[in-house]
Amino acid sequence: MPSISLRGEQVPASPIRKLVPFADAAKERGTKVYHLNIGQPDLPTPRKALDALKGVDRTTLEYSPSQGLKSLREKLSGYYGRFGIGVTPDEIIVTTGGSEALLLTFMSCLNPGDELIMTEPCYANYLSFAVACGITVRTVTSRIENGFALPPAEDFEAAVTPRTKAILICNPNNPTGSLYSEEELNSLKDIVLRHDLFLVADEVYREFRYNGAPFKSALELEGLEDNVIVVDSVSKRYSECGIRIGMIVSHNKEVLSTVMKFCQARLSPPLLGQIVAEASIDGTEEYSKECFEEYLGRRDFFIEGLNRIPGVFSPMPMGAFYTVASLPVEDAEDFCRWCLTDFHYKDEGTPEGFTGETVMMAPAAGFYRTEGLGKNQVRMAYVLRKEDLARALLVLEKALEAYKS
Amino acid sequence: MPSISLRGEQVPASPIRKLVPFADAAKERGTKVYHLNIGQPDLPTPRKALDALKGVDRTTLEYSPSQGLKSLREKLSGYYGRFGIGVTPDEIIVTTGGSEALLLTFMSCLNPGDELIMTEPCYANYLSFAVACGITVRTVTSRIENGFALPPAEDFEAAVTPRTKAILICNPNNPTGSLYSEEELNSLKDIVLRHDLFLVADEVYREFRYNGAPFKSALELEGLEDNVIVVDSVSKRYSECGIRIGMIVSHNKEVLSTVMKFCQARLSPPLLGQIVAEASIDGTEEYSKECFEEYLGRRDFFIEGLNRIPGVFSPMPMGAFYTVASLPVEDAEDFCRWCLTDFHYKDEGTPEGFTGETVMMAPAAGFYRTEGLGKNQVRMAYVLRKEDLARALLVLEKALEAYKS
Repeated sequence: MPSISLRGEQVPASPIRKLVPFADAAKERGTKVYHLNIGQPDLPTPRKALDALKGVDRTTLEYSPSQGLKSLREKLSGYYGRFGIGVTPDEIIVTTGGSEALLLTFMSCLNPGDELIMTEPCYANYLSFAVACGITVRTVTSRIENGFALPPAEDFEAAVTPRTKAILICNPNNPTGSLYSEEELNSLKDIVLRHDLFLVADEVYREFRYNGAPFKSALELEGLEDNVIVVDSVSKRYSECGIRIGMIVSHNKEVLSTVMKFCQARLSPPLLGQIVAEASIDGTEEYSKECFEEYLGRRDFFIEGLNRIPGVFSPMPMGAFYTVASLPVEDAEDFCRWCLTDFHYKDEGTPEGFTGETVMMAPAAGFYRTEGLGKNQVRMAYVLRKEDLARALLVLEKALEAYKS
Repeated sequence: MPSISLRGEQVPASPIRKLVPFADAAKERGTKVYHLNIGQPDLPTPRKALDALKGVDRTTLEYSPSQGLKSLREKLSGYYGRFGIGVTPDEIIVTTGGSEALLLTFMSCLNPGDELIMTEPCYANYLSFAVACGITVRTVTSRIENGFALPPAEDFEAAVTPRTKAILICNPNNPTGSLYSEEELNSLKDIVLRHDLFLVADEVYREFRYNGAPFKSALELEGLEDNVIVVDSVSKRYSECGIRIGMIVSHNKEVLSTVMKFCQARLSPPLLGQIVAEASIDGTEEYSKECFEEYLGRRDFFIEGLNRIPGVFSPMPMGAFYTVASLPVEDAEDFCRWCLTDFHYKDEGTPEGFTGETVMMAPAAGFYRTEGLGKNQVRMAYVLRKEDLARALLVLEKALEAYKS
C-alpha cells in the first residue's frame, strides 16, 4: 500500500474536533451537551439573503468568473468604503470561504521552507494550511495576563530570520477575542518594511467589536500598500458559514494576479453562495445591529459569569465571539475530556428528556505551538442563547467542583 | 515590495483563457464569437435541482459536515452502485468541485518533489495543482493517430523513477474525448502494484460515453483497492458547474482519513451546492437521457463536419464532449489568435446585429508538456447548439482558407 504524504501526517489534529467522539458518546447516553467548543453562529441568516436564494431565476447554474461575480465585488467595494477602506472591485478576489483565501494567499506569497510568523494562541487551521504549503510557522506569544494584546514589536523582531516572508495576524482575534489598536498595528510597520515582508490580516470578525472600540484595517496602514493582504469572509458576519464565501483584498497587483492563476485553476467560487452574499451586504444594517446587540449581551453575561466561578479567569474580549480562559485545573484537556466521559449534572433546570447536562470546550493547548503553553486554558465561543449560556456556566462550575474532589 | 512565490510564478497560463482578451476585443468590434474553447455546458440544470433550491427551508445557512452531508453521500453511494461500483457513504468525501478533489488528493498522497505520471495532452489545470503542491509531472504521450488511446504499459514503465508516487488518468478523457477500455485499464495494474503507486482516476465524464461503449471505473480494478482514488464531480453531469460540488472516492481508509484532515481545516464544502447536487441524483434519468442524446447528436454532427474540412482531422471521441483535432496549419496558436484578431466571416446566415462571425478554439500545445507536441492541434468542446456548431464549422473552414492565402 503506498504511503500517504508527510504533510498529510503533519497536519495537526483540530483541537476543536478532537473530543467529538466523546461528545457523541455522551449524547448517546442522553446527556445534553452545551457546545462552547465551536464558532458556529446560531443566529438566523438575514431574511433578505434567504429570499435572494428563493428568487434565483436561472436555467443553468453555470461557472461564475474565477475572480467572483462583478456585482458582488462592487457591493463589497462599497462595504469596505463604509469602514474607511478604499478598495476597487478589481482589488477583491472572491474565494471559497476565508479558508481558501488563506490557502491561496499562502501559496501565492510563500515558498516551501519560508517562514510565517503568527501570534499564539492562534486559529488552529492556520497551522494546517501552513503545513499544506510546506511553510514553517514561528510563533510570538500573546499572554492572558494582558488580555492577549498584540505582543511587542521586539518579540516579532526576535522571531525574524532570513527565511521570514510574512506575518499573519487575526484581528479581532480568534481564539482570544482581543482587538488590536491602531498603535499596536503601527508597531508592526517597521518590521514589515525593514524585512520586506507580507502582512496578512485575517479580519473576518471586523464587525464584532464591543464598547465602541474603533477598528483599523491593515489595509489602511500607510506605506504598507504593497505588503498587506486582507483575508475576509461573510460567514460569521451574516450567519451564513455554509455558503463558503470569502475574499482576498489587496492593493498589490502582483499578488492579485498570482492568486488569480490559482483561482483560474480551480475555475470559480460557489455561484449560489455569491448570490446569497451579495444580497446580505446592503439593506441589512438593522440585522447587523440586532446581531451585535445579541452578541454584546451574551459576552457581558458569559464573561462575567465565567469570572464569578472560583479559580476561573477570562479577560474581557473586545471583539469576535470567543474567549480563552484559564481554569483551576492542571490539564485542561484532561478536564474537557472528563466533562464528556465522566461527568453530568442534573437538577430541576435540566431540560426535559435529558439524563443530565455537560459542557464541551476546546482545550487551548492545541491553539499554541510552544509546548506547555495554555495547558490550563480552554477556548470557548459564546454562540448560544443566553438561557443555554446560563446553564453552561452552572454546569461548568459544578464540573470543576466535582473534578477537584 | 516582497516577491511572490516561485510556485506562483510557475503556474502555467491556462491555454483556454490565454486568448480571452483577443476574443473580448473581437466581440467589441461586433463579431459573433463561437466559443469552442471552453467546456461550459449550455444545457439546463435539472428542473428538480432548481426546485430544491427554491425549497430550501432553513433559517441559518450553517456549516455542513467537513465530509459532506450524509444524505448526499448516501445518494451518491446508490448512484455508484448503479454503475457497478460498490462504495459506502463513508468512502465518499464531498469536495468543492472536482478541483478541490484533485488538490486534496495531491496534498494527501504526494510529497513535494514526488513524481506524478499523466498522459498528455492533459487537462491543463492538473499542472497548476501539481505546481501548487510542489509535485513534479512526467508525461506519457497519447497520439492522435490512434485516437489518443491510453499509451502502452511500456511507456508508463519508462516514465517511472524512484520518486514516482502516482499515475493520474482522466477517463473519459478531457481534452481528447478518448475512453479507455477495461483492457487498457488493466494494463496499468502491474505497474501500479510493482511500484506501489496510487492510481488517481478523474472520472467526471463517466456518463458521457457514446455508441454503447461500456465503462469500467478504476474503483472496480481488482487488487487495486488500496491504490485507487477516484475524483468525481456533478458539474458536467447535471449542467451545474457553478455549484462547486465534487467528490473523492476511495477504499483506502488511510487516504480518506488524511484527506479529511485537510477537509476539516477548510471546514466544509458548499451547503447550497450539496442540496442541489442531492436533488440531481435520483429521478433525473429522463434528463440524463435527453442530455446524452443531445450530446451524441452534437458529436456526430460536429466531428463529421470537422473531418469534411480539407486538411482537418479529428478522431471520433467516444466520451466527454471534447476533441483534439489537427488543422492544416503549422502553428495552431497563431491561427487561433488570428481568427480573433484578423478574421471574420459574413454571409446571409450571419446572425442579425453582428458584423461577422469567428471561432475561438484552445491551442492544444498548452495541453502538452513535451515541447513541440500538438503545435498543429486545437482542443474544441461541442457544448453549443447544433445550429451554432454548423455556423462554427462553416466559419472555421472559411478561416482556414483565408489564413492559408
